[in-house]
Amino acid sequence: MNPATMQLSVDPFLRMALTEDIPTEDISTECVMPEPHRGDVQLIAKQDGIIAGLDVFERTFTLLDSTTTVHRRVADGDEVHAGDVLATVEGDVRILLSGERVALNILQRLSGIATYTHRAVQLLAGTGTTLVDTRKTTPGMRILEKEAVRIGGAGNHRFNLSDGVLLKDNHIDAAGGITQAITAARQRAPFVRKIEIEVETLDQVREALAAGADIIMFDNMSVEQMRAAVELVGDAAETECSGNVTLENLPALTSIGVDYISSGALTHSAPILDLSLKHLRVFDRTPAPTEETAQ
Amino acid sequence: MNPATMQLSVDPFLRMALTEDIPTEDISTECVMPEPHRGDVQLIAKQDGIIAGLDVFERTFTLLDSTTTVHRRVADGDEVHAGDVLATVEGDVRILLSGERVALNILQRLSGIATYTHRAVQLLAGTGTTLVDTRKTTPGMRILEKEAVRIGGAGNHRFNLSDGVLLKDNHIDAAGGITQAITAARQRAPFVRKIEIEVETLDQVREALAAGADIIMFDNMSVEQMRAAVELVGDAAETECSGNVTLENLPALTSIGVDYISSGALTHSAPILDLSLKHLRVFDRTPAPTEETAQ
Amino acid sequence: MNPATMQLSVDPFLRMALTEDIPTEDISTECVMPEPHRGDVQLIAKQDGIIAGLDVFERTFTLLDSTTTVHRRVADGDEVHAGDVLATVEGDVRILLSGERVALNILQRLSGIATYTHRAVQLLAGTGTTLVDTRKTTPGMRILEKEAVRIGGAGNHRFNLSDGVLLKDNHIDAAGGITQAITAARQRAPFVRKIEIEVETLDQVREALAAGADIIMFDNMSVEQMRAAVELVGDAAETECSGNVTLENLPALTSIGVDYISSGALTHSAPILDLSLKHLRVFDRTPAPTEETAQ
Amino acid sequence: MNPATMQLSVDPFLRMALTEDIPTEDISTECVMPEPHRGDVQLIAKQDGIIAGLDVFERTFTLLDSTTTVHRRVADGDEVHAGDVLATVEGDVRILLSGERVALNILQRLSGIATYTHRAVQLLAGTGTTLVDTRKTTPGMRILEKEAVRIGGAGNHRFNLSDGVLLKDNHIDAAGGITQAITAARQRAPFVRKIEIEVETLDQVREALAAGADIIMFDNMSVEQMRAAVELVGDAAETECSGNVTLENLPALTSIGVDYISSGALTHSAPILDLSLKHLRVFDRTPAPTEETAQ
Amino acid sequence: MNPATMQLSVDPFLRMALTEDIPTEDISTECVMPEPHRGDVQLIAKQDGIIAGLDVFERTFTLLDSTTTVHRRVADGDEVHAGDVLATVEGDVRILLSGERVALNILQRLSGIATYTHRAVQLLAGTGTTLVDTRKTTPGMRILEKEAVRIGGAGNHRFNLSDGVLLKDNHIDAAGGITQAITAARQRAPFVRKIEIEVETLDQVREALAAGADIIMFDNMSVEQMRAAVELVGDAAETECSGNVTLENLPALTSIGVDYISSGALTHSAPILDLSLKHLRVFDRTPAPTEETAQ
Amino acid sequence: MNPATMQLSVDPFLRMALTEDIPTEDISTECVMPEPHRGDVQLIAKQDGIIAGLDVFERTFTLLDSTTTVHRRVADGDEVHAGDVLATVEGDVRILLSGERVALNILQRLSGIATYTHRAVQLLAGTGTTLVDTRKTTPGMRILEKEAVRIGGAGNHRFNLSDGVLLKDNHIDAAGGITQAITAARQRAPFVRKIEIEVETLDQVREALAAGADIIMFDNMSVEQMRAAVELVGDAAETECSGNVTLENLPALTSIGVDYISSGALTHSAPILDLSLKHLRVFDRTPAPTEETAQ
Repeated sequence: MNPATMQLSVDPFLRMALTEDIPTEDISTECVMPEPHRGDVQLIAKQDGIIAGLDVFERTFTLLDSTTTVHRRVADGDEVHAGDVLATVEGDVRILLSGERVALNILQRLSGIATYTHRAVQLLAGTGTTLVDTRKTTPGMRILEKEAVRIGGAGNHRFNLSDGVLLKDNHIDAAGGITQAITAARQRAPFVRKIEIEVETLDQVREALAAGADIIMFDNMSVEQMRAAVELVGDAAETECSGNVTLENLPALTSIGVDYISSGALTHSAPILDLSLKHLRVFDRTPAPTEETAQ
Repeated sequence: MNPATMQLSVDPFLRMALTEDIPTEDISTECVMPEPHRGDVQLIAKQDGIIAGLDVFERTFTLLDSTTTVHRRVADGDEVHAGDVLATVEGDVRILLSGERVALNILQRLSGIATYTHRAVQLLAGTGTTLVDTRKTTPGMRILEKEAVRIGGAGNHRFNLSDGVLLKDNHIDAAGGITQAITAARQRAPFVRKIEIEVETLDQVREALAAGADIIMFDNMSVEQMRAAVELVGDAAETECSGNVTLENLPALTSIGVDYISSGALTHSAPILDLSLKHLRVFDRTPAPTEETAQ
Repeated sequence: MNPATMQLSVDPFLRMALTEDIPTEDISTECVMPEPHRGDVQLIAKQDGIIAGLDVFERTFTLLDSTTTVHRRVADGDEVHAGDVLATVEGDVRILLSGERVALNILQRLSGIATYTHRAVQLLAGTGTTLVDTRKTTPGMRILEKEAVRIGGAGNHRFNLSDGVLLKDNHIDAAGGITQAITAARQRAPFVRKIEIEVETLDQVREALAAGADIIMFDNMSVEQMRAAVELVGDAAETECSGNVTLENLPALTSIGVDYISSGALTHSAPILDLSLKHLRVFDRTPAPTEETAQ
Repeated sequence: MNPATMQLSVDPFLRMALTEDIPTEDISTECVMPEPHRGDVQLIAKQDGIIAGLDVFERTFTLLDSTTTVHRRVADGDEVHAGDVLATVEGDVRILLSGERVALNILQRLSGIATYTHRAVQLLAGTGTTLVDTRKTTPGMRILEKEAVRIGGAGNHRFNLSDGVLLKDNHIDAAGGITQAITAARQRAPFVRKIEIEVETLDQVREALAAGADIIMFDNMSVEQMRAAVELVGDAAETECSGNVTLENLPALTSIGVDYISSGALTHSAPILDLSLKHLRVFDRTPAPTEETAQ
Repeated sequence: MNPATMQLSVDPFLRMALTEDIPTEDISTECVMPEPHRGDVQLIAKQDGIIAGLDVFERTFTLLDSTTTVHRRVADGDEVHAGDVLATVEGDVRILLSGERVALNILQRLSGIATYTHRAVQLLAGTGTTLVDTRKTTPGMRILEKEAVRIGGAGNHRFNLSDGVLLKDNHIDAAGGITQAITAARQRAPFVRKIEIEVETLDQVREALAAGADIIMFDNMSVEQMRAAVELVGDAAETECSGNVTLENLPALTSIGVDYISSGALTHSAPILDLSLKHLRVFDRTPAPTEETAQ
Repeated sequence: MNPATMQLSVDPFLRMALTEDIPTEDISTECVMPEPHRGDVQLIAKQDGIIAGLDVFERTFTLLDSTTTVHRRVADGDEVHAGDVLATVEGDVRILLSGERVALNILQRLSGIATYTHRAVQLLAGTGTTLVDTRKTTPGMRILEKEAVRIGGAGNHRFNLSDGVLLKDNHIDAAGGITQAITAARQRAPFVRKIEIEVETLDQVREALAAGADIIMFDNMSVEQMRAAVELVGDAAETECSGNVTLENLPALTSIGVDYISSGALTHSAPILDLSLKHLRVFDRTPAPTEETAQ
């Protein structure tokens, strides 16, 4: 991961997550390990899937103690199998114990998304349609979840309300119509933004094209309607199909010929990939001599 | 929700989530609604389930603009059905549009947890066993998710590493044994904490009891072993069964007689409850006169 | 201004600015006005120009004390003249004194930008070319400065590195060439982003077009070269001219026929518009009775 | 720069500025440079002037990635000339690209201030009058801009409302008169503060002296009046001349004999010094082997 | 208290303190009062002393819930006696319970400081010497503790390292001597700062005067030496006596004739004033009807 | 100290404390030491006592500059005597000067608490009663002060309102009685919490036992009553004695036979332990050559 993204966006998220889990002290660890000792622990897969999020997993520990090291045996995007040792985390045993749950909560979720996305992408193989995500992500984890979607093989839609114009039904109601909404967007939005609009009928497709939409999203339309809409649009705009897209109903959408299919399920319905940290070893039970005791 | 919790814990979370979604401006809304207008929009259920999180849903909008009001037709814990209008949100149309996604992302997740938990709790009806959650929650949302679990009818385990002593396999390895771990905890932990320890065999149960554990958690044990363990423990400690507990395998655990069953699935595997904001109305398309234009 | 933007982006900026100016106490005000008194003060223009930023000016005072009110006689975008009373600020005299400098520092800067932009836009009247801003803004004030640019009559380029793809000379060097850079962007960037690239020669224009650039920016090219480039591009992409554009050299660029001219000078070189708060009045020198003294 | 100031005041400012520019990811850089590569880029002057702010320029990059190094060829306060290579920045190419704009925006502004100040200071050479700055600074950058003023050769007035007592016209109005204002300040302000008061007539000078002012600031007075005021004050207080002081009108003020002249223009009207980062080189296009691929 | 200070400095401190005490939920209150009810509770003195900090006490509750009101029977600076009812706090009972400890911890500490200071000030009555505080304050509470010192009748020394020059023994060692330290300060420090230096002998007093010190602080000098030093200094500078000044040894210092005596004990050794919140009443045990149940 | 606690809880506290003391610049240090020089300074005890807080003392300096090192001659918990050199701090002289006051303010307070606690613990030697702390701590320093209490030899009560159930008089009033309060807590609180209740009579002790309290706290009861209450409780619950416990009245409580005595005085009334940093040395007055001057 780009160190700028890690520093600016991920570190504050990790501090928040770690502080949520350790508001005062990790009392269990304080009891069993009051002094520093080096040791290691293994990251083990308990299910088959695609691993994603190893940089953040590692950063969870190094943020707490920069002397922690993670020896990886796999890389983001690799297929892993139940029982595989994916990595070894080595460092101050107190940090291995204190960071475990937060690191796993994140890695399991991201790997679950990559695994689910990977399956969905395979269903679209050879269709010319690209699968993309939505803004239906976990609050605070959008950057990470969108990276997991890419690791799973799909693409990204806009990241937030600021970096993409998408005029949905409520915006069209607020503007007073499709033409009004698109016209307003052409005048007010930075010219580097593409303008996307949501439509529900073929008439609306025609109105959107005439008003100059860059991307037309089909919402609540039948497969037949969408096929007709794609033909109608041709090269005049890009097309997107949206709305309750899951692994189960994706096969029915492969023949539409739409440019993009967006699926909120990739991020809000992917089950986690079960992982655990096991086999903790303490390298030496004698605490390291400190300066004053060494004399 | 207690206003102290809202102010101190939820508001910072909501600010983070809203800033993630609007790092600069909500460009689509700026385009279609550059001036303030009052209006409303309906919160509609698209699936059957248990609703949870209405206070936070409301706070998402009032945090952005204190003049927003939410007229609720249901309360947290109510069963809702596909098509039900659950509430109307009334306020500055720009805020209705800008807050929509964040408010829904949170409400859908919490309602999904309450719905899943409610089903699980029903499976334990009449058994004397209480279902509780874990720390396998979404980073940043633990307080909210634990409230959703309670709304769904289950109880809470510890909230974080600071407020409960739980000595798991890695802690026991670090301490050098069960007796050492419990003894250290009795000496170091605040006396108001109960001491819980994870065991895998009946011998370990005996060792934990002898060392004075307050709660004994059975991990990776067969149903038969757990039934024997419960009998062995008697009134000398509380008992808990843990490990990959889902709606699917819960029925197999109802006959053990354990005091508590904890399930990470309640928070990490509950599918969302599908909800949407629809039917936006703008009350008056003429912007309100401002002081200077009114003169 | 959209209350969401105010809450999420402007308030933290204002708190930072106010804390920078009052790290402990406003000692001069504490000395002369230890008790609360109501009063008012006038906002007066000391130069001719375009006013911009009144919402933030007002928010500076209401953030410190919600009972402050600003009675505006002008609106953002209005022409003002030296000596005009633009508004009256009424409230706790201590807040009028403590907020003055921060409120003026911001309003003067934004009004300076709107004034400078307004002059530049007039130079392009009738040319079909739109003036836009850049990222050469004051750290922390980008949203506000881009709004001032719009109030001055120009448009916005991208807001940050996240919401627009712009491949400049250093990116092209990093990618190994124009074609490589554009190809990489088409694969990796969210599909809702337009792809813009910087070119210095007509050959590079051709390469950019072939690779599928959405916007082509001319850098360090002569007026003649740019005129030829615009013709070459035609409708195949949008065109932009950049590089050291000021009020002084803008007239030379009006005949190129380019779609957009971007100017960093709008935000980094606009002189401030001189404004001041004068004629403070204290309404009643007797402090209001408090509950206990009233009895 | 003192590491304490850097840590406590500058780092939060830089994080804010960098997050403003990279709210999610630097998408252009992600496209062209998805993997880490070492490289360098040159900092080049495009105008003549005084350079100021190199520590903060460097910190912008090292904050993002501590392995970045800046090889300086000049030091703060040096005269630089158009075309000079001022430094080379070496590090992860992604960081060189992502930090460029923020680092330059700051360095250009600070160097512009130092350059403008340097010219102003030369106009006062040999007069016994010291040029100082004001609080008319960029929100968030006051410490940095006041350092740039010192690098340019001038001195600092107070840093904020907390660390200096300055009783201006509005404070005098609030207090009910000059004597009342000074008397209140002597009683309430920490005794380590000097008390400064703004006057507009010779009578007010006499009143301020009688009340015990430490510093008397002349506002809106003619050169002749100020000359008489300086004579009147003698050694009984320090004297300061203020109000719309620029490079243009400074020569008219050199003969007054006042101790200090303060100028807001140093920080709010200095044009930036044009600088750029050019000639990016990628040292090795093969990404470094990572632990797992190395095996 | 000035609302600017409250907003900018006190509110963040209170949020920190409240979050420290309620990291997740106030579990005791959640148990006994799950629904909102109005009620009140009395603030009662358990010792005689001077009350200080009522604004912050009140703000602790109103920050959590703006509908809370505090009916005061005394004002800051009043003498209170054991058993006195000082105020009634009325509001949501949950807030009365949740805010109690933090509000009392602060009020007790500040009242303790005011009480101790008040006694110390009385010992200096009629001497012409002013008692002032130091920077030996509780981290995070300096503004509040310095206000408590003023309420107790003493004055303030500098607030922090930024707003006052005080050259102590270690600074003199670093500079290479008293003259070097003062000379450096005259050149580098903002001219609005007075320059204070610490001396230990009469020779050092002479050197400090010659170098132009504004304030001379006597450290580790006998009463006789200090009396001689005061005479030596005359009107050429202000004088201060420092070092382990407590209620016990203050009487020995009254005859020196020094301008200021500074005492760290005012803030680091004042015992708290014992106060408590008692006699909670719940106005109506029926929860208020909510919108939906009211229909 | 566990690095997780240091990173997550202590570092933000230290940044706050340091920023309070250096809001802009350490002006005295800037004057005497404008360039980096290495040096050292000694930490010296000026009173006898128990030292506590050395990790935080050290972190104050290393947070400002990671090249600072602290050579300790004593460890937390050691007895120190007036005149002892406890440690040497070596680093950039500017950091030794700038961090001094904050580091000492914290170390003095924590050592004062450990010293006071140590004396109190000795009074309970051989009684079977454990001394514990309360929540009457300094806002922001609770974790540190509770560690100082442990270093002094006592134990910890709950850390905050979230991690322990303690039903006091006001909670009982809110619930409507002791039985109601305990019953509500058993239903609502996480099962891992012990339930503690405050009682004032023997009848209340009986009611609390019947309702299932885990811990019973005696408030405002005579020694005789408490002795009877301890006997009444037997092994059915743990017992605690609270209320205005100081070094002076502790001996009167040793014969009660209660399990725990809690004392707010440990943290709110312990006088500081006087310490100072003295004998600053500058190793080399020539500033180290920098890269550019070295060439």
